[in-house]
Amino acid sequence: MRADSVCVYAIEPCARDRRELPNYSDVPNGSTGLFTSGQPTRQWTVKASEPVGYEVRIADGLFEPDSTVLLEDARPGTGPVRRVVVTDTVVNDLYGKTIRDYFDHHGVEYEICVLPDGETAKTWDNVLTVVETLDRFGIDRRREPVIGIGGGVLLDIVGFVASTYRRGTPYIRVPTTLIGLVDAGVGVKTGFNFNGHKNRLGTYFAAERNLLDRTFLKTLGERHISNGLAEILKIALIKDYRLFTLLESYGADLVGTRMQGPYDGPHPDPALEAMERAIHGMLEELQPNLREKNLERVVDYGHTFSPTVEMQALPELLHGEAVAVDMALTTVLAERRGLVDASQRERIFRVMVDLNLPTWHELCVPDVLQPALADTVRHRNGQQRLPLPMGIGSAVFVNDVTPSELAEAAEHLAQAALAVAR
Amino acid sequence: MRADSVCVYAIEPCARDRRELPNYSDVPNGSTGLFTSGQPTRQWTVKASEPVGYEVRIADGLFEPDSTVLLEDARPGTGPVRRVVVTDTVVNDLYGKTIRDYFDHHGVEYEICVLPDGETAKTWDNVLTVVETLDRFGIDRRREPVIGIGGGVLLDIVGFVASTYRRGTPYIRVPTTLIGLVDAGVGVKTGFNFNGHKNRLGTYFAAERNLLDRTFLKTLGERHISNGLAEILKIALIKDYRLFTLLESYGADLVGTRMQGPYDGPHPDPALEAMERAIHGMLEELQPNLREKNLERVVDYGHTFSPTVEMQALPELLHGEAVAVDMALTTVLAERRGLVDASQRERIFRVMVDLNLPTWHELCVPDVLQPALADTVRHRNGQQRLPLPMGIGSAVFVNDVTPSELAEAAEHLAQAALAVAR
Repeated sequence: MRADSVCVYAIEPCARDRRELPNYSDVPNGSTGLFTSGQPTRQWTVKASEPVGYEVRIADGLFEPDSTVLLEDARPGTGPVRRVVVTDTVVNDLYGKTIRDYFDHHGVEYEICVLPDGETAKTWDNVLTVVETLDRFGIDRRREPVIGIGGGVLLDIVGFVASTYRRGTPYIRVPTTLIGLVDAGVGVKTGFNFNGHKNRLGTYFAAERNLLDRTFLKTLGERHISNGLAEILKIALIKDYRLFTLLESYGADLVGTRMQGPYDGPHPDPALEAMERAIHGMLEELQPNLREKNLERVVDYGHTFSPTVEMQALPELLHGEAVAVDMALTTVLAERRGLVDASQRERIFRVMVDLNLPTWHELCVPDVLQPALADTVRHRNGQQRLPLPMGIGSAVFVNDVTPSELAEAAEHLAQAALAVAR
Repeated sequence: MRADSVCVYAIEPCARDRRELPNYSDVPNGSTGLFTSGQPTRQWTVKASEPVGYEVRIADGLFEPDSTVLLEDARPGTGPVRRVVVTDTVVNDLYGKTIRDYFDHHGVEYEICVLPDGETAKTWDNVLTVVETLDRFGIDRRREPVIGIGGGVLLDIVGFVASTYRRGTPYIRVPTTLIGLVDAGVGVKTGFNFNGHKNRLGTYFAAERNLLDRTFLKTLGERHISNGLAEILKIALIKDYRLFTLLESYGADLVGTRMQGPYDGPHPDPALEAMERAIHGMLEELQPNLREKNLERVVDYGHTFSPTVEMQALPELLHGEAVAVDMALTTVLAERRGLVDASQRERIFRVMVDLNLPTWHELCVPDVLQPALADTVRHRNGQQRLPLPMGIGSAVFVNDVTPSELAEAAEHLAQAALAVAR
């Protein structure tokens, strides 16, 4: 039973016309009460605070028969455990049987929805396919979280459906790529491409749980390992020197072993530490700014020029590769401003080479870079808010990069990249 | 410039494996640091709190040439003021010229997107039409809020687009129906129908401003005035006796004057007070429970049996009419439990009659009501959580209505409704 006491603590009548609602017992019947005079200019300001909470957990071996991590939210005693799983063709080819065996072993009633793979699959039609699967399955959204298993594209689609299906349905993300494990899979963004624009429709919606299983990387192409390492390097450069030294010591090994080890050196598991530090650093930046209202985001480092470079170079560059090119350029920009010295710049470039990441691209010319910066300025509400490295492991924001500075940096970059490639 | 100090106040490493990230200066190069041992079971809990704030304002005469309320968020000095307006065919026929004249008068660069009217227009295709309009117009989402002008259906569509377009674009709602002014137009729900389900995809997303212009009601059909008054009566019954007495004194007049006055009685503007009290009461209930996590909502009063009755009677009953039938039934249920006495029940039914609202429908039979209740129980996570009036102006929740009690109440209702109709 609910008490009917009234608490108006957060609907705030506007100061210029603050009126309390009279309790009916205070107002004689037939009285005109407090609502009588003047022009109707009454207003209310509704203020509330919505809690957001989610879990990110490193959980290797999720689909080993005896692991219960994936199903630990299942409540006993209310009929069979039921789950809808959404994945893509690549994951299904490699792990479909393992996943089915796992659910069969645990007696789960499930349906697996398999979407096409890749950026071109990020469409409304595939959103629709997932929605129809949930309808057909008859999901009980309060106790049957949707499980998404795949790369960034797949997780973005599943996240969008989860955020809008009946105004919000819990879901679990299981990233299968390195970039998913350390970047796309730990934040709260969802979306799909539309009308020729990337992520034109999307939401901010946290998965209840993000379960990170590094063993998926065993089957990931080396180039995609490097792709993910670019985002790890980004965190290193802007805020974690120790992470940088790990990449410096073990970079080529991390790629070569697909983050699985064993490693040639004193550290038992540099891949795990690198992942943990990258995730921790990412979460530190995301947590106070989940909806990106603060436009000065250090995690935007490497993402100033790269959106344009990535799009114009399509399909040549992976996302992380374009980010690496952007980081190389902005490292040179920082060097020319005295924020980074030549030996630091050389160490950074050397790590990029170790990670099989590009340090230059032929699109690094003023005619591309200047419009790219202008486009990013539009997205950052009229200011550059360009993060630059300050030494290794720290960053500053600048707003005053000129076209000539950019042109000179591009030229300087071509030489520096050539030197490190030798 | 941003300080690079690290604050981990809200990413909480799990207690069972709490590890602080070492500052790089504390860790000698080459050390294995704190990330060395054991199985990878590290986890993070990200906690944050997202502020939600929106304004609801009574602002009659929004489109009078000299009114600046609608445009008061326009910032001077940054080029022309630009706006996308979304409305429906009915509003466009009646007010299209007024709206265009208003924007022309204020030198606004605008595009008006006109959607079809009615529940059948609540489709993905119309979501798409709005998205394409925003793309074509090239909206600057930080300074050009989308303006939706129309009934509940139109506002739900605009709200859905606004909540997902580039992960959130500010918008302004201008409801043109009474139900929009007091109910749909002051909350935060958005959505559209899909795959045969009402509001299958939707979000919770507040409009920056909800501007309530009562003068639109001059052209609203009387039946739609009654439709909105049903939601006003709901608030009266569950939490505002004074509002009930206003409806009791002025009910027929409110309908007859379309809430515009003048009124035959001592109160200068009972329509304005009724609107204000209904909105205030609604906001009091919404504010602490914007995302409806608490399933015991007094504002669900009248919405237990009515979803099924409304759908099965389509297109016979308007939403508010179905709500009135539900309120009549549950008033009788309450009377049979001794929560409401016969004279209170008679007063409530008399007000419904004054408001031209039905107190009974032929679908009020056990074969319809019992499955309707079961369906609502599913939506309320397994419990009835049925609000019942306790006297007039207060409510309680019950969870123990039996099929036989419901059948007897339905029979009792038929007699009571017949009596009041005489």
